Amino acid sequence: MQNDTCNHQHKSINQTVNLVTRNLSPNRTVTSSWKNFAEAYLELPNLKMALDTSKVAWPEGFLSQMSGAMANALEQMQALEQGAVANPDEQRQVGHYWLRAPALAPPEARQAIEASHGQIREFVQRVHSGSLLGSQGQPFRNLLVIGIGGSALGPQFVHHALGSAADRLSVRFLDNTDPDGIDRALAALAPELDQTLVLVISKSGGTKETRNGMLEAQHVFQQAGVDFSRQAVAITGSGSALDRLADAEGWLGRFPMWDWVGGRTSETSVVGLLPAALQGLGWESLLEGARLMDEHTRLPEINHNPAALLALAWHTLTSGRAEKAMVVLPYKDRLELFSRYLQQLVMESLGKAQDLKGDLVHQGLTVYGNKGSTDQHAYIQQLREGPNDFFAVFLEVLRDRNGTTIDVEPEVTSGDFLHGFLLGTRQALAEAGRQSITLTLEQVDARSIGALIALFERAVGLYALLVGINAYHQPGVEAGKVAAEAIVKLQGLLLQELQQHPGQELDVESLAARLGVKEQTESLFRILLHLAVNERIRRVGTSWQDSRFGAPSKKA
Amino acid sequence: MQNDTCNHQHKSINQTVNLVTRNLSPNRTVTSSWKNFAEAYLELPNLKMALDTSKVAWPEGFLSQMSGAMANALEQMQALEQGAVANPDEQRQVGHYWLRAPALAPPEARQAIEASHGQIREFVQRVHSGSLLGSQGQPFRNLLVIGIGGSALGPQFVHHALGSAADRLSVRFLDNTDPDGIDRALAALAPELDQTLVLVISKSGGTKETRNGMLEAQHVFQQAGVDFSRQAVAITGSGSALDRLADAEGWLGRFPMWDWVGGRTSETSVVGLLPAALQGLGWESLLEGARLMDEHTRLPEINHNPAALLALAWHTLTSGRAEKAMVVLPYKDRLELFSRYLQQLVMESLGKAQDLKGDLVHQGLTVYGNKGSTDQHAYIQQLREGPNDFFAVFLEVLRDRNGTTIDVEPEVTSGDFLHGFLLGTRQALAEAGRQSITLTLEQVDARSIGALIALFERAVGLYALLVGINAYHQPGVEAGKVAAEAIVKLQGLLLQELQQHPGQELDVESLAARLGVKEQTESLFRILLHLAVNERIRRVGTSWQDSRFGAPSKKA
Repeated sequence: MQNDTCNHQHKSINQTVNLVTRNLSPNRTVTSSWKNFAEAYLELPNLKMALDTSKVAWPEGFLSQMSGAMANALEQMQALEQGAVANPDEQRQVGHYWLRAPALAPPEARQAIEASHGQIREFVQRVHSGSLLGSQGQPFRNLLVIGIGGSALGPQFVHHALGSAADRLSVRFLDNTDPDGIDRALAALAPELDQTLVLVISKSGGTKETRNGMLEAQHVFQQAGVDFSRQAVAITGSGSALDRLADAEGWLGRFPMWDWVGGRTSETSVVGLLPAALQGLGWESLLEGARLMDEHTRLPEINHNPAALLALAWHTLTSGRAEKAMVVLPYKDRLELFSRYLQQLVMESLGKAQDLKGDLVHQGLTVYGNKGSTDQHAYIQQLREGPNDFFAVFLEVLRDRNGTTIDVEPEVTSGDFLHGFLLGTRQALAEAGRQSITLTLEQVDARSIGALIALFERAVGLYALLVGINAYHQPGVEAGKVAAEAIVKLQGLLLQELQQHPGQELDVESLAARLGVKEQTESLFRILLHLAVNERIRRVGTSWQDSRFGAPSKKA
Repeated sequence: MQNDTCNHQHKSINQTVNLVTRNLSPNRTVTSSWKNFAEAYLELPNLKMALDTSKVAWPEGFLSQMSGAMANALEQMQALEQGAVANPDEQRQVGHYWLRAPALAPPEARQAIEASHGQIREFVQRVHSGSLLGSQGQPFRNLLVIGIGGSALGPQFVHHALGSAADRLSVRFLDNTDPDGIDRALAALAPELDQTLVLVISKSGGTKETRNGMLEAQHVFQQAGVDFSRQAVAITGSGSALDRLADAEGWLGRFPMWDWVGGRTSETSVVGLLPAALQGLGWESLLEGARLMDEHTRLPEINHNPAALLALAWHTLTSGRAEKAMVVLPYKDRLELFSRYLQQLVMESLGKAQDLKGDLVHQGLTVYGNKGSTDQHAYIQQLREGPNDFFAVFLEVLRDRNGTTIDVEPEVTSGDFLHGFLLGTRQALAEAGRQSITLTLEQVDARSIGALIALFERAVGLYALLVGINAYHQPGVEAGKVAAEAIVKLQGLLLQELQQHPGQELDVESLAARLGVKEQTESLFRILLHLAVNERIRRVGTSWQDSRFGAPSKKA
C-alpha cells in the first residue's frame, strides 16, 4: 500500500444519502477467483489498510436489498453525530466520534475535549520531564492503572499493542477485585512504590472492583509510608464519589469522563489517551487514525465504507440474528488482546434481550479469539472440521519487524511462515466452506490501532441500527451488580446472626431458616464455606452435609 | 471442605461396570432449591474440590438413559488405560493417565516415565543449586520456553497459575513465528542471555514455529557471544530432527516425549513438569493432584465420578452436537489462562468432521472465556440477555489470599465482592434460563491445578466416546500446515521468477500467468505486498490495482 492520501470528502450531514451498491456476480460464493477478490477488496490508502470481504458468500442481490436499511442506519449515525440522543434508555448523547474530531461536537463538548487534550499534554510533559515527582522526590518510572471493563480493556489492548523498550513508564493494571491478583500486581511494584504513578479510572466512582483496587493500593502505599494522594490521579465524572475523594485528599490530578462517552467506546477519551501518553505512545496518532477511519466510515457509498461493509457482512454471515460467532485471528503477537477488547465492544453493545420496539429478540454476536499462528495448534482443528457456526476475521500485518531479519530456510523468514500460516489457514477454511473477512494493516502503530478501534466502533453502531437494538446501554450488567450486592448483604446478615450466638454452631438449613432466606440456602452455604476457608468463621464437621458454622473464635 | 481423605477404591479394571444413577426429581429444571443442589453437589474431600451440576436442567431420566453409553465409555477408558490402541488413525496408544500413575503403565512406558522423573529431579537440582551454570559461568536466572500449542499452553497456564515472588527462575515463552513478537521476548532477556536457560519443546522437531523460534534465539545468542548449545535443553521424541541436532551440538540436556502422549494432554509429562520444576513449582504435587483426580474419574458410579458427570452435562447441554458453547469463568486472576488451555484440549479433541464410523458429523464444543469479575464488565451482558447459545463453567476459589486482608466496607473484603459477583452472576444467569456448572477449589495450588487438568482430560475422553469420535488426532491441523507450506513454496517460485528478470516490473496477473497459478492470484498478490513492505522486492504504482513488482534493488 502506498502513501498517497485518500481524498474522500465527508458529505454534508444534511445531504441525502446516496447508495451505490456493488455489482455482484451472480450466485456469488466463497471462491478464490481474482475477479471475486478484486471486486471485494477495499483499500484505504491513507490508512495503509484494506478490508477484504471476498471470502464472504454474499447472497446475490443482498447489498441492493440492504441498501435502504443501510442508508437509514447511516442517516441515524449522522443524527447521532449531530448530537441526537442515541441512548434512549439513559437519555444520553453518544459522542465517541467527537473525541477525535472535536470540531464536529456541540460547543460545550468541543471545549471539554480540547481542554482535556491540553491537560493530557501538559501533565504528561511534567511527568516525563521530571518536573513532577513522586511524594518522596523520585521521578515516576511505573504506572499503575486501576479500572475494569471499559476502563481497562482499551488501555490494556493499546499498552500491549504499542509498547516497546522505549516506553517512558512501565505499566501494570489492577482490573479485578481478586485479593491474590491485587497482591501479585502490588508485590511487583513494592520496591518502587515511591516511583509509581496511580491512575484510578471510574466514571461513576461507584464501581466496586475499582473502588476496592484503589483501597487496597492505598493500604499498601500507607504501609510503605508513601503518600498515595500525592501520586494518584483520578479519571472520573465531575462530581462523582471518586472526584470528590480526589479533591478532598488533594490528589495529583483529576481528569474528566463525560456521560456522553460509554465505557466500551472510551479508548479515544482521556481513559485511553492518558495511560498511552504516559507510557510514551503516540496518542495523537491514535486519534488521527481514528479520525481518518471515521471519515471512511461516514461515506454513503457502501462499497467505499469499510464499517458498512463489515456490518453488512456480519448481517449476512449471522442472518442478522447471532447465528455464527466471530473468531478474531490476528497474526501478530501485539494484537493478542484485540479479541478481548472486541468481546466487550461487540458483545456488550449487541447482546440485548429487547429491540428498540421492546420485542424480545435476544440479539448478540459472540466474539472469541487469540492469535495466529499459535491457534493453529489449538482450536483451529475445530474451526476447520467442526460445526460451521462461526466466521473468522483475519488480521494480516504486512511489516514483520523493525530491523534486519534472518533466513530460517534459504530466502524464507520467520515472518514468511507467519504470513504463510495466515494465508494457508484462510484458504483451508474457505475450502471447508468456512467464511472469513480479512483486514490488512501495513503495520501495527498508533495510527492503525486508532483506525481499527474506530472501524469496529462504527460497525457495531451500524449493525445495531440494522437489527434495531440500542447499542449503548448494558442493562444486564446492572442486574449482575444488584445480585452481587444482595449476596454481600446476605453475608452481613449471616455474620450478624453468628455473632449474636457466640459459641453456637449451626447448620446451613437452620441458619437459612433463622435469616428467613430458605430459598437462598445454597448461596448461604457457599458464603459459609468462603468465610470458613478464610478463617473468618469457624467450621466443624467433616463432610459438607454435616458441617456446622459458628462465630469466629477469638484470635490468639 | 475438610481434610479427611476419600476412600474410593479404584475398581478392578476387569470388574463389570455397575452404574448407580441418581434419583432425579421429576421435571428437573434450573432451580435454586436446596434439595436440588444437595442432590447435585459432588464433594471430593481429598482434593478439596467440588463439582456442582445443580444449575444444569437435567431432563428427567437422562442419566438412566445414558447409563449404558457411559458404562461403555468407562469400559473403553479402562481398555485405553490397559494399553489398547485408542487413536486408530495413528495406531497409537494414549497414555497420559500413566504419567501420574506409572504403575498402571506397560513396563516399558513405566520405566520411561519413572526415569524421566528422576532426570527432572536431578537436572533441576543442579540448576537450582548452581552446580550447573551458564556457558559463561553465571547461575541461571531466566527460562525461555520455545514451543507452541500443546508444548506451550499447558506450561503457560501452570506458570501463570502458580507463579510467585519465590519463583526460582523467571519464565518467558516464544509461542509463535512472529518476528516482532520474538524480538520483544528476546529483547527483554538481552541483558541476561548468559543467565538464560532455553527449553525447546517439539515432539517431531518439525514444527516450523518452534524451529523458527529456536533459530531466532540461536542467532541472538550468537550475536551476543553466548554459547547457545551450552544453555539449551531439548524436550523431543527420541531420534527426531531436534533430538539429533541437540545431540550433534552437545546441548545441555535432552528429555523425552513419547508418541503415546498427545500434545494437548502432555502437561503431566516432561513438557509440563520440567518448566514447572525449573520455575520452582511443586510439580510432584501437580502429579499427585492429577493422580487423585484420575481415581475419582475411573469410578463406575456416575454420581461419584466428576468426569462422567461433566461429560454427561456437556451432552445434555449441547444435545450431544455442539449446540451450545462452553464459557469458562474462573473468578481468580491466576486462572485467567485456563480457558485458553481448555480451548486446545477441548476443541482440538472434539472438533472433528467424521465420527469413528466415518460419517460426517462436524462435532465440537466451542470454548471461550477469561476471568470474573472482570468479564462482568464485558461480555456478560450478552450472556445474560443475548442468545441462549452457551453454558457457563464457573470456577470458585474459596481462599482469597495468603496473609492478612483489609476491609473495604465494614466486615466486607475485596474477596467477598469477588465471591459475591460470582454467586450473583451465576444466579442472574440461572434466572434468565442460562445453565451453568460450578467447580469449587479450596485454593489454587499445584495439587488443585493437576486435578483440574486431569478432570477435563477425562471428561473430554468420555464425551468423545459418548458421541463416537476420535479425541486423539487432529487432521485439520495437518491440512493448515500443508496449505501454509504451499504458500511458502509459491513465494519461492515467485522470488525466483522475479530474480530471473531483474529490472522488470510485473503486475500480479502477469506473474500468476507466468507461474501457471492463475487460481492463486490472490495469494500471490498478498505475498507480493508482504515482500514489498519488508523491502525484499520493489513495488511501483500507487493503488493496488496498478501496482507492479520487481526483483529487489541492490542494497546501497
